Amino acid sequence: MRTIPLIQFGFGGVGRAVVRRVMKARDEFEWRYGIQLQYVALCDSNGAAVEAQGISFGDLERAMAAKEAGRGLADTPIGYQHEGLLDIVDVAGVTGAIVIDVTASDETVPALQWALDKDYFAVLANKKPLAGSIASFRQLTDSDRLRYEATVGAGMPIIAALRQALIASNDHVRRIEGCFSGTLGFLTTGLQAGESYSALVRHAKQQGYTEPDPRDDLGGMDVARKALILARTMGWPLELSQIEVESLYPPELAAGSPADFLEAISALDEPFRARVAEAQAAGQTLRYVAALESGAAQVGLRAVPVDSPVGRLQGTDNLAAFYTDVYAPNPMVLQGRGAGVDGTAAGVLADIVSLALTDR
Amino acid sequence: MRTIPLIQFGFGGVGRAVVRRVMKARDEFEWRYGIQLQYVALCDSNGAAVEAQGISFGDLERAMAAKEAGRGLADTPIGYQHEGLLDIVDVAGVTGAIVIDVTASDETVPALQWALDKDYFAVLANKKPLAGSIASFRQLTDSDRLRYEATVGAGMPIIAALRQALIASNDHVRRIEGCFSGTLGFLTTGLQAGESYSALVRHAKQQGYTEPDPRDDLGGMDVARKALILARTMGWPLELSQIEVESLYPPELAAGSPADFLEAISALDEPFRARVAEAQAAGQTLRYVAALESGAAQVGLRAVPVDSPVGRLQGTDNLAAFYTDVYAPNPMVLQGRGAGVDGTAAGVLADIVSLALTDR
Repeated sequence: MRTIPLIQFGFGGVGRAVVRRVMKARDEFEWRYGIQLQYVALCDSNGAAVEAQGISFGDLERAMAAKEAGRGLADTPIGYQHEGLLDIVDVAGVTGAIVIDVTASDETVPALQWALDKDYFAVLANKKPLAGSIASFRQLTDSDRLRYEATVGAGMPIIAALRQALIASNDHVRRIEGCFSGTLGFLTTGLQAGESYSALVRHAKQQGYTEPDPRDDLGGMDVARKALILARTMGWPLELSQIEVESLYPPELAAGSPADFLEAISALDEPFRARVAEAQAAGQTLRYVAALESGAAQVGLRAVPVDSPVGRLQGTDNLAAFYTDVYAPNPMVLQGRGAGVDGTAAGVLADIVSLALTDR
Repeated sequence: MRTIPLIQFGFGGVGRAVVRRVMKARDEFEWRYGIQLQYVALCDSNGAAVEAQGISFGDLERAMAAKEAGRGLADTPIGYQHEGLLDIVDVAGVTGAIVIDVTASDETVPALQWALDKDYFAVLANKKPLAGSIASFRQLTDSDRLRYEATVGAGMPIIAALRQALIASNDHVRRIEGCFSGTLGFLTTGLQAGESYSALVRHAKQQGYTEPDPRDDLGGMDVARKALILARTMGWPLELSQIEVESLYPPELAAGSPADFLEAISALDEPFRARVAEAQAAGQTLRYVAALESGAAQVGLRAVPVDSPVGRLQGTDNLAAFYTDVYAPNPMVLQGRGAGVDGTAAGVLADIVSLALTDR
């Protein structure tokens, strides 16, 4: 039995889902893989609960309960330190730890790099550290001690399919086409069904399908970061600024509060209705598509054939279609839930196991 | 740079495609993974070409040319030995080799077991060794030194998705539904379009979509073996005899030559047309489906909703739909080319790289 120390940055919804999944998997992982996952540090934005001997399941439960009741990690029985991430990563006597980044911040990069230099491992659901400069991406990933399956399509093995099935078989990826936003999938499927843009955006916001400010989804930058991560995984030296991104709201609506925005968007209903009608007249439907080909990437609303893999996609599911030398003319397609705390936590756990089994 | 010795059982279409893929990947794998794949033995059904120092690319080319010209491996410049596989596996001075089984025989099991006991690795495109007794499956797979991605869905990462994305994230797989035969996909899509059973079977045979005897596809045992491998990968202690298999021809047509069979099957057109009409009246379509649930597996012709993942599948593409706790109500779906020498060779190469990178 090998014990794998875990250090987690982030204790929000995804962070707690990861903790719960780790706890639930304990018996299964002991007999199946001969590994025991053990938290030694849990960090939120103010500091960290650290216990080099391992945080007990009871204390993990109490920390989650405190957080869910609106109290901070500091308000738990675990020893709490108001320190920066670099100090937390340097837990005395811990070796071979896996650092889990489930924040949404790019400020974790120095701590991640420091951990990798220390021969730790890292698992990211956080896209930001991989969406900085290409030099920073390479520094983080070159050692192959960092995994990031959950950054694209949550728990779906999209990165694994690309790395392990296509790149490792020396197949040539000619084009990737994908829908990587459940929110924008909900929007485009609704537009196709004749609903109005403003009603769909308001509904999505009410249902919690969007970020607190829906413009964070509608602007397309989250999808662009996923496209960037796929491109860089293929070795393309792309920067985020080089990706063409179409925003689903005009620049004049960028200012003002989310409430102002939701008020103003009825003016967009007619232009979107016209685009939908134009697509339908040509036997097509609109989808918010990330397309990667010949070293370049575009992200935006596209009219696609109704009976194409992307056109058949309905609702919030994500999809990745890989057009390669082997998968031609039909692509290899991976489809399913690509968001949500459970799927994301599942992706994180899969990466943890993958690293634990590599490091024997 | 690490050199990984390769010992290959089988030098037919898939076997040669693997050799070609290995040769083509040489430069790429050197810089990407720091590994050099080097054949030390190539075996056909009569014996083997063995060269412990590594068979040169020139000799590999000559061996493939000889084989494609209808001559045997023995008729090549490489030293040829008329020996059993056990002797071949025991190449003097070779350690850490990967044995590749691309035969269609169950007689490779003792040599595979012997290789694993010797701390070699194994990669199978051959289903037979994994479709014997559950005890034999466990003996081969328990060490985790054997990979078999190409046995189900060729190069598509179906086994990887199951093992690495679902099992390793402690997700609970409730049901797997899949179409794992390009031939039967061609048949059922054609039936849906109104073509007759006999015309489709004859056409498939002419186009080389079927085995030399089409009954080897139509009987369903090949799909049943794939279902068995998926079940066992989940830890289900299933035997092949416990899988319900529906054959697409009646027992009275089991005797006689393939030509006799193709002559006699016009009598089946009407019964199949009736089943298709019945399904269509209910808004459904027929697909040859492998279904795994609650520890049991069935393989046969099923009426499925036209707009389900399996119902939407067209032509020879394969599909696997995983219904799990995380992927609910919509399954995670993997779809694409699931047969052919190129896809199968790609799956074999992906497994070789996976083992080479694990063994550091």
